[in-house]
Amino acid sequence: MIWGTIFLCLVFQAILVFGVQDLKNLNIWPMPKSVEYGDKSIFLSKNFHLMTNGSKYLDKDGILKDGFTRLLDVLTANNVIEYVGKVDESVLLQGIHVVVNSESDELQYDIDESYKLYIHPEGSPIYANIEAATVYGALHGLQTFSQLCHFNLKSRKLIVNQIPWTITDQPRFSYRGLLIDTSRHYQPLPMIKKVIDSMAYAKLNVLHWHIVDKQSFPLEIPSYPKLWNGAYSLTERYTMAAAAEIVSYAKRRGINVLAELDVPGHAESWGVGYPALWPSKNCTEPLDVSSDFTFKLIDGVLSDFSKTFKYKFVHLGGDEVDTSCWSSTPRIQKWLKQQGLNESQAYEYFVLKAQKIAVSHGFEVINWEETFNHFGSKLDRKTVVHNWLGGGVAEQVVEAGLRCIVSNQDKWYLDHLDATWDMFYMNEPLTNITKPEQQKLVLGGEVCMWGETIDGSDIEQTIWPRAAAAAGT
Amino acid sequence: MIWGTIFLCLVFQAILVFGVQDLKNLNIWPMPKSVEYGDKSIFLSKNFHLMTNGSKYLDKDGILKDGFTRLLDVLTANNVIEYVGKVDESVLLQGIHVVVNSESDELQYDIDESYKLYIHPEGSPIYANIEAATVYGALHGLQTFSQLCHFNLKSRKLIVNQIPWTITDQPRFSYRGLLIDTSRHYQPLPMIKKVIDSMAYAKLNVLHWHIVDKQSFPLEIPSYPKLWNGAYSLTERYTMAAAAEIVSYAKRRGINVLAELDVPGHAESWGVGYPALWPSKNCTEPLDVSSDFTFKLIDGVLSDFSKTFKYKFVHLGGDEVDTSCWSSTPRIQKWLKQQGLNESQAYEYFVLKAQKIAVSHGFEVINWEETFNHFGSKLDRKTVVHNWLGGGVAEQVVEAGLRCIVSNQDKWYLDHLDATWDMFYMNEPLTNITKPEQQKLVLGGEVCMWGETIDGSDIEQTIWPRAAAAAGT
Repeated sequence: MIWGTIFLCLVFQAILVFGVQDLKNLNIWPMPKSVEYGDKSIFLSKNFHLMTNGSKYLDKDGILKDGFTRLLDVLTANNVIEYVGKVDESVLLQGIHVVVNSESDELQYDIDESYKLYIHPEGSPIYANIEAATVYGALHGLQTFSQLCHFNLKSRKLIVNQIPWTITDQPRFSYRGLLIDTSRHYQPLPMIKKVIDSMAYAKLNVLHWHIVDKQSFPLEIPSYPKLWNGAYSLTERYTMAAAAEIVSYAKRRGINVLAELDVPGHAESWGVGYPALWPSKNCTEPLDVSSDFTFKLIDGVLSDFSKTFKYKFVHLGGDEVDTSCWSSTPRIQKWLKQQGLNESQAYEYFVLKAQKIAVSHGFEVINWEETFNHFGSKLDRKTVVHNWLGGGVAEQVVEAGLRCIVSNQDKWYLDHLDATWDMFYMNEPLTNITKPEQQKLVLGGEVCMWGETIDGSDIEQTIWPRAAAAAGT
Repeated sequence: MIWGTIFLCLVFQAILVFGVQDLKNLNIWPMPKSVEYGDKSIFLSKNFHLMTNGSKYLDKDGILKDGFTRLLDVLTANNVIEYVGKVDESVLLQGIHVVVNSESDELQYDIDESYKLYIHPEGSPIYANIEAATVYGALHGLQTFSQLCHFNLKSRKLIVNQIPWTITDQPRFSYRGLLIDTSRHYQPLPMIKKVIDSMAYAKLNVLHWHIVDKQSFPLEIPSYPKLWNGAYSLTERYTMAAAAEIVSYAKRRGINVLAELDVPGHAESWGVGYPALWPSKNCTEPLDVSSDFTFKLIDGVLSDFSKTFKYKFVHLGGDEVDTSCWSSTPRIQKWLKQQGLNESQAYEYFVLKAQKIAVSHGFEVINWEETFNHFGSKLDRKTVVHNWLGGGVAEQVVEAGLRCIVSNQDKWYLDHLDATWDMFYMNEPLTNITKPEQQKLVLGGEVCMWGETIDGSDIEQTIWPRAAAAAGT
């Protein structure tokens, strides 16, 4: 709530700074696709409520109802409404009438997130109206509505100015991500939930969960229970039930969880529980490419993943792989010779084999850009290449016919404290990509909150407001 | 919740560091007065609930019920309990049986906060038991209970180890305060509530709200509505209804709110709305001692205060008064001459006159120590002197027969980032005070979170864990 408020205050300035003169009274972020407004005002009624007459979506799990409750919580968090005196019915907004056309609450890549929000001061009683294809579009509509409301110091009530409003909106990109990293610093479950809450304010829709890395392995893997021996401590762990709770919590806010299993580098912590995964005790990364056990274990992990992480993508990492341990370990050197592979080819072998395993469990694969840079033509044709090293990669990826997510570190890495909010705002995923069919291959963008120097005490403060600036792109 | 967890983890180390060998397994903070424990374990039942049979307190406002709900929230925040398999009834804790002897939920200075908590694995079904004189003692018992519970990774359930427990507790001091300062930085309402939540974890019981100061006047004063013209902005304001909400929120957690009106210094912002309060436009502090309007306005403010702030004390400041504006302003200089007062005597005149106004509204007065240091013998005999400048003051105050609160800045100022948690822990309010009747005059202590360099982004991180170290004193 705090962060919602803080980032909204800050990013509103962006609108002014960038001189969108005719929109200067619109404190909506990200700016909807189309906005029309008037010059009248209306107060929110004491019994402001949700109405869903005519909606095909029946909300049996309460996703919409909970979203409405959160709206009320946000609207009343920072001010105490005083219901004294009588207000003319003709300037009272009685509630929001939400009509959702799809019965399904399935959340998946590329669902329809569009909505129409209109507040016309006609009829009696007066309602705000949201029409959406899916309940997740309706949740976006509620977020936008919250940004139209202000506490009026004179009346001590909530007021919507500039009615009548007619807003139509749909996201420019289907993938609007935020990465968190629970290996470098463990994040308690309530903190991950807070991050998810705040993502919803900015209409981000993918939590990229970089779960494990060199430093620690906090997640329970039922098939290989010793893996979380690599956690920092007994309490800095997530059970798979906790992971499922995160997925469920995010889903109810319209946010998918993209799980990452970064292989073969960034994996030293795996060997705390299973030292056989290390080339040797003194040379502990990358994972042993020569061992069947390595891939058997990856298969087990991805099998377990597939039961909890229902997003159609899984992230298999593949970045920053220093293969020298493979050559310096006699056993693996011997295997490389037998297979006729040099280090670079072995890296390719590993990534492609891991991709096949992921595909066998029903996933489409996202890999960091090094995989594309080294052997792009060999990657599974459904691979999504995740840019991070710098600009100019997306155009090569889509030229090669693959899909891309943009996270160039100079602009969209949140741990780069020298990257300012206006740099975040100005970063353009479609730079130099003009052909419509290639533009479609850019799924979207992601800001990355790497965890080396942040913990629960500053993750929110480091993510916001810059992540919101990117969300406004 | 996060901060509860973080400070608890950190302060547990204090117990170890200070070598209380036989208590090394007791993760309870602050340490109760008496603790006995065994070596058995018991699981919390799936239907863990509150039972109040035999309680004289009827909880019509749900203070106890809400406290129990918060207990459940804390216990389940960071872990997902898995209710699979069957657990033997004889090792299941079905709930907490709370018996409160007082019917009243009045919260006031020096109420009985004692409680007894025992968990004996006898009878069927088995309950934990809390006996308390007041509902606020019972809330402390719930906090202590929460610290006995752990998430057990093997069973995936909450477990209480070391039963049977028998804990009796009562606070060493009746006043256990934390100061927040909403003048130097405005704190949003939800942030103040979070601070109150976290105070309850450490059994602190007074939120000293330093509402206004030189920099800004964020609070609405119905009698003098232009005062909050001195707020930083239109939104960085508290209505009096918001202040009442804070008082009510704190009360439901056993925490009193001590409002401060710091006079005659630290008051420049008052004059934004009422410039007549300034000696002159160029010399804006202290408040004009020569003007009847000054005291009429203070009377109005304290009258408004008395309707919302129900704690028996009000804080009237009185610190760091540079009186040179009085002499350099001809009008006031003339008045001083007429009254036969020098600057120092005028300072005394102001403080004593303000005290009388506060007393007329039913308050007892707390003043910062400068008032005692300058004219201690003239202060109202019910004055509580608030130490801050350094050590050695409390002993002089109680020797003079006045009451005292200890906040020596070298040890208990949270904005002093060089004051470490162990310094907070080792600070002793009763230093050099040995006579029991004098010890009774030390009401307690307070840690101070001055607001010059903190806002909503770091106030919690700066308060905790050091405030908890002080709470353990």
